[in-house]
Amino acid sequence: MPTVNAFAATSASGPLSRTTIERRDVGTKDVLIEIAYSGICHSDIHTVRGEWGDITYPQVVGHEIVGTVTEVGSEVTLHKVGDRVGVGCMVNSCRECENCIAGEEQYCLNGNTGTYASVDRDGTITQGGYSTHIVVVEDFVLRVPEAIPFEKAAPLLCAGITTYSPLAHWKVGPGSRVAVVGMGGLGHMAVKIAHAMGAEVTVLSQSLSKQEDGLRLGADHYYATSDPATFDKLKNTFDLIVNSVSAKIDINAYLSLLRLDGTLVSVGAPPEPLPVQVFSLFGNRRSFAGSGIGSIRETQEMLDFCAEHGIAPETELVAADYINEAYERVLASDVRYRFVIDAATLA
Amino acid sequence: MPTVNAFAATSASGPLSRTTIERRDVGTKDVLIEIAYSGICHSDIHTVRGEWGDITYPQVVGHEIVGTVTEVGSEVTLHKVGDRVGVGCMVNSCRECENCIAGEEQYCLNGNTGTYASVDRDGTITQGGYSTHIVVVEDFVLRVPEAIPFEKAAPLLCAGITTYSPLAHWKVGPGSRVAVVGMGGLGHMAVKIAHAMGAEVTVLSQSLSKQEDGLRLGADHYYATSDPATFDKLKNTFDLIVNSVSAKIDINAYLSLLRLDGTLVSVGAPPEPLPVQVFSLFGNRRSFAGSGIGSIRETQEMLDFCAEHGIAPETELVAADYINEAYERVLASDVRYRFVIDAATLA
Repeated sequence: MPTVNAFAATSASGPLSRTTIERRDVGTKDVLIEIAYSGICHSDIHTVRGEWGDITYPQVVGHEIVGTVTEVGSEVTLHKVGDRVGVGCMVNSCRECENCIAGEEQYCLNGNTGTYASVDRDGTITQGGYSTHIVVVEDFVLRVPEAIPFEKAAPLLCAGITTYSPLAHWKVGPGSRVAVVGMGGLGHMAVKIAHAMGAEVTVLSQSLSKQEDGLRLGADHYYATSDPATFDKLKNTFDLIVNSVSAKIDINAYLSLLRLDGTLVSVGAPPEPLPVQVFSLFGNRRSFAGSGIGSIRETQEMLDFCAEHGIAPETELVAADYINEAYERVLASDVRYRFVIDAATLA
Repeated sequence: MPTVNAFAATSASGPLSRTTIERRDVGTKDVLIEIAYSGICHSDIHTVRGEWGDITYPQVVGHEIVGTVTEVGSEVTLHKVGDRVGVGCMVNSCRECENCIAGEEQYCLNGNTGTYASVDRDGTITQGGYSTHIVVVEDFVLRVPEAIPFEKAAPLLCAGITTYSPLAHWKVGPGSRVAVVGMGGLGHMAVKIAHAMGAEVTVLSQSLSKQEDGLRLGADHYYATSDPATFDKLKNTFDLIVNSVSAKIDINAYLSLLRLDGTLVSVGAPPEPLPVQVFSLFGNRRSFAGSGIGSIRETQEMLDFCAEHGIAPETELVAADYINEAYERVLASDVRYRFVIDAATLA
């Protein structure tokens, strides 16, 4: 079992710090990846702080991973040594339930195996991407096209697919009117992808502080939700609203912005329930939906789409020793728009 | 202006009583209908009691109307004297908004004109079907096929279309797994229609008291929601859940019963908001939607579908003087499954 460098949380309250962890030996269907870059997702912070449930420490997080294949198992056919590859939020699934069989293993009815803080088949706890290497079964490893700058590619594996999937599922294209709620790590990707799909894109952000960025990244319109006039003006407007905000929002006010057969899909989830007035759904036959990441097939489709359209996240490259400071800045919404850890700084 | 007999509410708290009202003269595009039967809908009770907002008295309610055409305006082309026709929940719409133009005038952005308690084009308040005659513009009048027993047809105009519309919109057919929440006026129609569409139908009712009826009307399965084991057993099961209950339900428990890409659509609306846990929507990419009646085009399609499949509501025919007692029985859920007023008793 190879011992590799990593950056781990050792308690819910303390800072993350350098450590070493053991990766499993490369199995017949496994791929060993030398990690190049790893994105910092808000989920990482929720997890290490125990906000989504108790976890076992030490825990290495990170589920936006890109790197290079350095070893493959004897039965691996999908990847070869030297390939540029990626790993997202899951590293396995049951492969037997109706959702796995349908190719939607992100909704595995037995629970997919998360890239970190999840119980792996061998009973160990999975350890994520803030590390120099990772071993993953080949069919949960993605190909990263050369056209995507490697140091920017990592956030596509979570922020990219989480926003691409609902935009694709609800068939956004030319003529679609799409609103994106929130201009953070997820929101800025939703803007870029929806724009590339041909939609008319509106950002609904608390203030206009990121308006210039929003318009530059592909939005056609930008409104402050702190201004009540926004909701009057945009009533019955959107085919799809992608809500990337994890804080509590006035859900009925946002639902009123949907036109006939429109859907508000949340990819961010506040811990407290949202009180939905059913009458808000009657008008225009509206829907309120949820969406979680995307399948492996769809993640590959998203990477290829981004390569084709020249889409990459806006990132700030940081050294591993900056992770704790980066966390504070994520919590303060002081990042435009995703931190990426240079794994060379862990070597 | 013809004066006609009717049965009206004269206050929010008092009983309904006999009266006369004036109908407008038959305009060039109007149809005069001699009402044969009029259904009693729970909405009628909410309206006359002011539970959905203050209204002007006297008010005649009733929006499940069938009758015979006795006069047509000079430009009427869709109906002729002697035709069996029906009128549902709306008698007009703006015809100019994008929803009207899309043929979905039930979602008229300027508000469709309700069959009762609504402001008509001429500024008068519309008066509904507990009456001997009504005048309606021709394109809001439906054809009632001969195959549907006339004395049972009236409830199709509200209870029928309200349940048919979401079943059709969400493409229920052979292989679909549909649950119907509640076995009342709406619920029993949802069971019959979903069964006729080829779905596997499950009734979720508070108790098993109507189980025999449910199975006879077309349900394949019947469960009591008072038994918590029901929710464990049926997790991840349904493509579509039609909620016909207007009381508050544990929405997250019902959402958990949806399989991949399933939708829970409410056609009943509790006055208080339902607290939705967004995590309930993430799993299986679930949706929570609303649906209100159906378009005129779709209402005709529903009537033709019911004629073709031999579907009619289960009804109890009553005289006009029984309306107040019928209301009490509706409130006590003591009706199987719809009261229909014989308009001859108003003559």
